[in-house]
Amino acid sequence: MTLQHDGATRARPVEPVQVHVLAGGSMSVRADHVVGEEPLEVRLAAPGEPPVAVAVTMRTPGNDFELAVGFLLSEGLLATADDVRSVRYCDLPEGDPQRYNVVTVTAIPVPGMAVRQRAGTVTASCGVCGTATLDELQGRCPAVPPGEPVDAAVLAGLPDRLRARQRVFDRTGGLHAAGLFDHGGDLLAVREDVGRHNAVDKLVGWAALQRRLPLVSAVLVVSGRVSFEIVQKAAVAGVPTVAAVSAPSSLAVHTARALDMTLAGFVRDGRANVYSSPWRITGSRQ
Amino acid sequence: MTLQHDGATRARPVEPVQVHVLAGGSMSVRADHVVGEEPLEVRLAAPGEPPVAVAVTMRTPGNDFELAVGFLLSEGLLATADDVRSVRYCDLPEGDPQRYNVVTVTAIPVPGMAVRQRAGTVTASCGVCGTATLDELQGRCPAVPPGEPVDAAVLAGLPDRLRARQRVFDRTGGLHAAGLFDHGGDLLAVREDVGRHNAVDKLVGWAALQRRLPLVSAVLVVSGRVSFEIVQKAAVAGVPTVAAVSAPSSLAVHTARALDMTLAGFVRDGRANVYSSPWRITGSRQ
Repeated sequence: MTLQHDGATRARPVEPVQVHVLAGGSMSVRADHVVGEEPLEVRLAAPGEPPVAVAVTMRTPGNDFELAVGFLLSEGLLATADDVRSVRYCDLPEGDPQRYNVVTVTAIPVPGMAVRQRAGTVTASCGVCGTATLDELQGRCPAVPPGEPVDAAVLAGLPDRLRARQRVFDRTGGLHAAGLFDHGGDLLAVREDVGRHNAVDKLVGWAALQRRLPLVSAVLVVSGRVSFEIVQKAAVAGVPTVAAVSAPSSLAVHTARALDMTLAGFVRDGRANVYSSPWRITGSRQ
Repeated sequence: MTLQHDGATRARPVEPVQVHVLAGGSMSVRADHVVGEEPLEVRLAAPGEPPVAVAVTMRTPGNDFELAVGFLLSEGLLATADDVRSVRYCDLPEGDPQRYNVVTVTAIPVPGMAVRQRAGTVTASCGVCGTATLDELQGRCPAVPPGEPVDAAVLAGLPDRLRARQRVFDRTGGLHAAGLFDHGGDLLAVREDVGRHNAVDKLVGWAALQRRLPLVSAVLVVSGRVSFEIVQKAAVAGVPTVAAVSAPSSLAVHTARALDMTLAGFVRDGRANVYSSPWRITGSRQ
């Protein structure tokens, strides 16, 4: 697998801005920082074939190769990291502002799936629904592995451990964070992004490129809410436990239950709501 | 324009769930609620032509016609609400769970744009970037209208007025909210959704279907962060002032400045950071 140098170190996750501060009836000017946001176009190519653009996502620059590979795995456009042949930026010269906004992944195609298949076609039946969406995911991931149990006290402490590592958030207040921990609470990796889904895609891509998938004894922790797509990405990565600081959606709960994944929400102040598969949480009295 | 009855009243923005509550070292079971999340497929058709699926978005059911029309306007796939001929769900019988998950908008096509054009094609140049994205938006919206000034004290009070109307949030904690206010602080409309962008699309669609666009004296208030896409949607609707409870991204700031839009962030506790066009904020000492 060819991995061009990832532009992470040259990216600008934070940008300086001048801001007018309104407080106590008066306005003053001061220097501040905002989180970086730039579009990333993800392209997918079969070896020897021209690339096809599969998505443009607004993301915080940095860890772009992880984002591209994680996104393609989550969407089922890539079956396994072993199929990746190369990941590269486009061929513009160093210094061109667009150089780091297109990532092309060359990979063995998923059997039976044309890359274009997912774009712009009307589905044969009259529509999508939560059940159909869940069925599609279960076709790819029948259930997450049992993995390892997580101690209730360890679970409750994970958001604080994540927060302690949110470096960009500290400067801008503008970021979602996602972290992977092992079942004992040790940190594996943290990623921050303006997009909640991107932060998780970057973690999945990190694990894929490190040949650590499936993450059968990991806990995914997210700084905000949990929608279907977060659960989907965790399932694709084989993560059995997801913990969120805030609320889950109905489809996130239905999906976690169908896959026997443990989903905890409102994990804060020593409390948690466990919406599915509470058997993985140990050390509490029933 | 034909508007089939919007399924809003039959939709389930909230679902009951059973949850295991972990607190003080013990686990107990109680009834709770989570916010509804279901996919919505948006289809666009020229009159007499077959529809093309342009997007699937995960959304909280309700106000689906507003969401579809607002999304198409924001993306430039619809030039004006006057071009809409009909908005309808698909033809499944009442009671079918998929009936309310596909919305087809039939409309006069945007001149020079094939519906399929945006899906799956590789852009001619080597990629997208923030500048190109901003240029595309400026091609459609050279600048927002000057509108009306907003008093600093009114601005500071808007998030509390929005919060007071977040009905689903009160039951689930799982929602983004967006509100439109006039420049004097009176509420025009509020929408809640699991997706931050959807809440704004629903507002834009509401205004479009009510023939209230452009919203030249309105203020858009969002409960969370402001990314590029929020500013883009406000610009398309002609909204001159955007206020957010939390942080903006770099591209949101660049875009607001280029369009002479007033963008305020961290609007809370009687304070605000104004990132662009502070001349619209009156009643404060410089």
